[in-house]
Amino acid sequence: MYTYSQMTTAAILGCAGYTGQETLDRVLAHPDLEPIALGSDSLAGRPAAALDPRLNRALPAFTTNAEAVAAGADLLFLCLGGDEAAAFEPPSGAVVVDLSGAHRLTDPDVACAWYGNAPGAWSYGLPELYPPAGNLIANPGCYATAALLALGPLAGEIENVVVDAKSGVSGAGKALKQSSHAGFVLENLSPYAVGAHRHAPEIAQQLGAPVCFVPHLLPVRRGLLATCYVQTEVDVRELLEDAYASSPVVRVLPDGTTPELARVQSTDGAEIGVFTDSATGTAIVICALDNLGKGAAGQAVQNANLALGLDETAGLRLHGVLV
Amino acid sequence: MYTYSQMTTAAILGCAGYTGQETLDRVLAHPDLEPIALGSDSLAGRPAAALDPRLNRALPAFTTNAEAVAAGADLLFLCLGGDEAAAFEPPSGAVVVDLSGAHRLTDPDVACAWYGNAPGAWSYGLPELYPPAGNLIANPGCYATAALLALGPLAGEIENVVVDAKSGVSGAGKALKQSSHAGFVLENLSPYAVGAHRHAPEIAQQLGAPVCFVPHLLPVRRGLLATCYVQTEVDVRELLEDAYASSPVVRVLPDGTTPELARVQSTDGAEIGVFTDSATGTAIVICALDNLGKGAAGQAVQNANLALGLDETAGLRLHGVLV
Amino acid sequence: MYTYSQMTTAAILGCAGYTGQETLDRVLAHPDLEPIALGSDSLAGRPAAALDPRLNRALPAFTTNAEAVAAGADLLFLCLGGDEAAAFEPPSGAVVVDLSGAHRLTDPDVACAWYGNAPGAWSYGLPELYPPAGNLIANPGCYATAALLALGPLAGEIENVVVDAKSGVSGAGKALKQSSHAGFVLENLSPYAVGAHRHAPEIAQQLGAPVCFVPHLLPVRRGLLATCYVQTEVDVRELLEDAYASSPVVRVLPDGTTPELARVQSTDGAEIGVFTDSATGTAIVICALDNLGKGAAGQAVQNANLALGLDETAGLRLHGVLV
Amino acid sequence: MYTYSQMTTAAILGCAGYTGQETLDRVLAHPDLEPIALGSDSLAGRPAAALDPRLNRALPAFTTNAEAVAAGADLLFLCLGGDEAAAFEPPSGAVVVDLSGAHRLTDPDVACAWYGNAPGAWSYGLPELYPPAGNLIANPGCYATAALLALGPLAGEIENVVVDAKSGVSGAGKALKQSSHAGFVLENLSPYAVGAHRHAPEIAQQLGAPVCFVPHLLPVRRGLLATCYVQTEVDVRELLEDAYASSPVVRVLPDGTTPELARVQSTDGAEIGVFTDSATGTAIVICALDNLGKGAAGQAVQNANLALGLDETAGLRLHGVLV
Repeated sequence: MYTYSQMTTAAILGCAGYTGQETLDRVLAHPDLEPIALGSDSLAGRPAAALDPRLNRALPAFTTNAEAVAAGADLLFLCLGGDEAAAFEPPSGAVVVDLSGAHRLTDPDVACAWYGNAPGAWSYGLPELYPPAGNLIANPGCYATAALLALGPLAGEIENVVVDAKSGVSGAGKALKQSSHAGFVLENLSPYAVGAHRHAPEIAQQLGAPVCFVPHLLPVRRGLLATCYVQTEVDVRELLEDAYASSPVVRVLPDGTTPELARVQSTDGAEIGVFTDSATGTAIVICALDNLGKGAAGQAVQNANLALGLDETAGLRLHGVLV
Repeated sequence: MYTYSQMTTAAILGCAGYTGQETLDRVLAHPDLEPIALGSDSLAGRPAAALDPRLNRALPAFTTNAEAVAAGADLLFLCLGGDEAAAFEPPSGAVVVDLSGAHRLTDPDVACAWYGNAPGAWSYGLPELYPPAGNLIANPGCYATAALLALGPLAGEIENVVVDAKSGVSGAGKALKQSSHAGFVLENLSPYAVGAHRHAPEIAQQLGAPVCFVPHLLPVRRGLLATCYVQTEVDVRELLEDAYASSPVVRVLPDGTTPELARVQSTDGAEIGVFTDSATGTAIVICALDNLGKGAAGQAVQNANLALGLDETAGLRLHGVLV
Repeated sequence: MYTYSQMTTAAILGCAGYTGQETLDRVLAHPDLEPIALGSDSLAGRPAAALDPRLNRALPAFTTNAEAVAAGADLLFLCLGGDEAAAFEPPSGAVVVDLSGAHRLTDPDVACAWYGNAPGAWSYGLPELYPPAGNLIANPGCYATAALLALGPLAGEIENVVVDAKSGVSGAGKALKQSSHAGFVLENLSPYAVGAHRHAPEIAQQLGAPVCFVPHLLPVRRGLLATCYVQTEVDVRELLEDAYASSPVVRVLPDGTTPELARVQSTDGAEIGVFTDSATGTAIVICALDNLGKGAAGQAVQNANLALGLDETAGLRLHGVLV
Repeated sequence: MYTYSQMTTAAILGCAGYTGQETLDRVLAHPDLEPIALGSDSLAGRPAAALDPRLNRALPAFTTNAEAVAAGADLLFLCLGGDEAAAFEPPSGAVVVDLSGAHRLTDPDVACAWYGNAPGAWSYGLPELYPPAGNLIANPGCYATAALLALGPLAGEIENVVVDAKSGVSGAGKALKQSSHAGFVLENLSPYAVGAHRHAPEIAQQLGAPVCFVPHLLPVRRGLLATCYVQTEVDVRELLEDAYASSPVVRVLPDGTTPELARVQSTDGAEIGVFTDSATGTAIVICALDNLGKGAAGQAVQNANLALGLDETAGLRLHGVLV
């Protein structure tokens, strides 16, 4: 159906991490993208199957990240740590999607306080609410995506915002650390960075108001759920249903249905449930998504599609009713 | 050390459920209690080992619950469903601890709305905050225990209370239902009874103020963690440390240390962490406990000890640093 | 691309169970199949979204299973219990794939002993080794599929066969039972039907030799791994690599690489690892697959594709390197 | 009941690992042992609560392992890596229990091949079958303990031995490695060291016959189950029931009852189930224990009790019917 000349060439930097692997997965399923360079400083020189024996089709071998940039792809996905992403110099003309946090915060003081670098000229891209502009796109954080999908349509109309979030362990990356050791994670639940997580200023920046944010580490591989509590006068359900009425990605559930991880895991969609507390009148908005899907790689490809004028959902995992 | 005549005789009704089994476990470890009747309508006539092959010591066989009452024990533990507990007629003179919700709510209208029965003359017993009075003791709910341990010492000084709680599946009992099926629970997280759970009025009754309460089902066997958010002017850490300074059961953690399930599972203790949100000034109090320990059987035995004038912690599981 | 007249019409009986839901998932992804009837006696009359809110596209509402048969589809999937499947009368001319065990055993005495019914004229269909013949296809059991993929190519050359298998809880279906309760499954591992499981005669029938088979219930949602031990004189790796050299579904891993659940979950592929025990010379063949994929719905669609002359892998989930 | 002068002084080397922590837990519960030195090179100088906030009672601060030896305790537990344990020079007169593998293998060639050191004059101590002799005790491996409890009483009467074992992640220790990362372990099952694990020669040494041994990593925190397959002419159940008839630690289950992790987790007991395969006559013996309990720290204390002439089960966790 497509001829070679119609394909957009893509390079992925940092293929060996969770977000790199997941981005590669979507690029492989994308009808319009051709992966021409797979960057990984740790795997450079090895075949694609060195990452995973399932990668046994025709694929380029891994190169260093620098070599992957030099391949001159039309589209680059930065699946790097924040410091590496901050130091990255975008090639002229290419669309670049940065999955790290390096370019998300727009206020230089706030950005320096949380990430140690000024943000530069990148556009925050959360397609349903804040579509990306230009070629340099800062992909939102996983927690921020869930909180913003839940609360973004209510911005300016809410007070006393509490976001209590829970994420699977893949949100912390593949790096070896005590808090990702299975002996710590299994049969456990642990809050962390309580009231001091760097996704809080990201949420606040987009909402235009401070939020109280507490993340918890779940004993699951993937999936994220944010339970958001607000005081408001507006009709929360109406605003959310209007915001996502035509979205192929975000689904507002019927009254009484609760979101859950199992229905969003390994997909690029998100579910939102809307409730009112019977005792206090508090509005409760719950958003579930996959931290590696809509919370990372899925949204990165969605942002790339918008920047390139492709079908917004090409390459995304939006169907399936798997158990 | 003890002679037979000094022992307090105990009967457990509803031995086959989680709370019955756990209560039995503590009674067996208790130096002053002698189990003389094990009631279970489903296991009546069978030996104790029919419940678990570990129960291979000398123990009475199971009887019906009615026969267990007729045994005339000094102390009865009601590990029954709410309806059965509501219909129970306490024998004169015995100490009775009801682990169901039937007698927790003191306002007749509220009690009828949530449990379908008026509360009667039972005393709510949460030893650290609301010590039991009299022979008939309503043992608190697991969620309520966690929320009250976190917030009880702050009562009257807090506003905009949000309690976001997470519990292992044993909190829902052994009954077979869709939401306790492992195919639903594993790798999942599901909020339920959002803004409409019957532990909310129980918490509100003891705090004297309404709370917004949302429970979530965790993919773990046991353990419960409540993350509580409040607006307040008081020094939260000081009030909590004062409240539990001499408690052998509740531990306020040092500044910066977060509670987690793994340290309270299979114990009768509780951990509390105190934090302040950097962006909004919200006070965050987190309490972790075992829903079957301090949240049920451990607290029931603790209440019984107080009512009987025994050592408050006899039979409890308060030591151990197991992984 | 396809016009209506080119589509094969399909009906699924028993849509509400795990295998029904997974079969539906693959039918929805299949370019040549059109689902015209969704049978479920428990959901009859309700819309497709009643099963799962993700089913929000245009789909027929559920009907009774009898009505689904009456729709006259070219292809029927029986996702029913064994008794219902045994009593099913296939409509003339249709391709029928039975995912239950009712028609797998060909020896009448053995079939009656394990399933209570004679097998009838059904063909056992495990495409890589025993391609289906005719319109009535008995889809293999999940454990049998794994054991046979590991050992089938060695049939006649092996002795002292031990199959130690481990499966996630979805293998036991959605029915509510004690052994599927999350309080039993989580943090547990339990052998069951030790030396007496009905998949043992199924494996033996195809191998032509008895096997010692023990299944274990894993605390995971999906996935199955069979560790097979045999005494043999043949070159096991060579025989297995030859058998699956051109298979798009079964992957023999390189020397030293072990199969694992994580790489086959939610897919229709299978992985095989080949090892020799250093102390005893025993050959060890390990096969991993998804009990609901290659072990059930994926294989059912693969069998249907062969019977209908369609692309063998149409509708299957064979790609993806998801975490 | 005890006066200070009657206490046996104990030192633990390597307190910060899983086996060190669990050994400390049992020493704290032991009526006759007094912990006078807690060795940990990583925690030296810090208070006991630095390891775990539950350790808030009066305890010595951590010292280096060398300092802990110099404290001159009557009893030393070596909870060290194999190389450190191999290099350890036992102080004269002290009872030393080595929980590493350094001193388990008695054949110098075999020991050097698997551990890189000759075994020296240590006694293998598995109390029920091979009671320790002398002051220097090599504590068995977790897998070996399970396989030997299942098969030891049958030694000399069995052929074609297959041991298919499954263990929780704490068996691999607290060290950070890819295969202990929760993103790898959760919802996964992975065989490893297939046919080449160093517990195989340990089992073979005690049985006097080679075994085919394959371990698998389970997605659970603790617990180990070994499914053992043998050809034999003897009455397996009778031999096992005789062997453990008076054991307070090992429980042979009634006919038809299967062992499971949940009943041995966090205990120092073991469960054994005995079965015969209906198709092949193979005897199947299944042993479940806690890899950190009977498989490590519990057995170490049991060995120490025997060497010191104390009550064999003092300090052990053998009661309780916790869920």
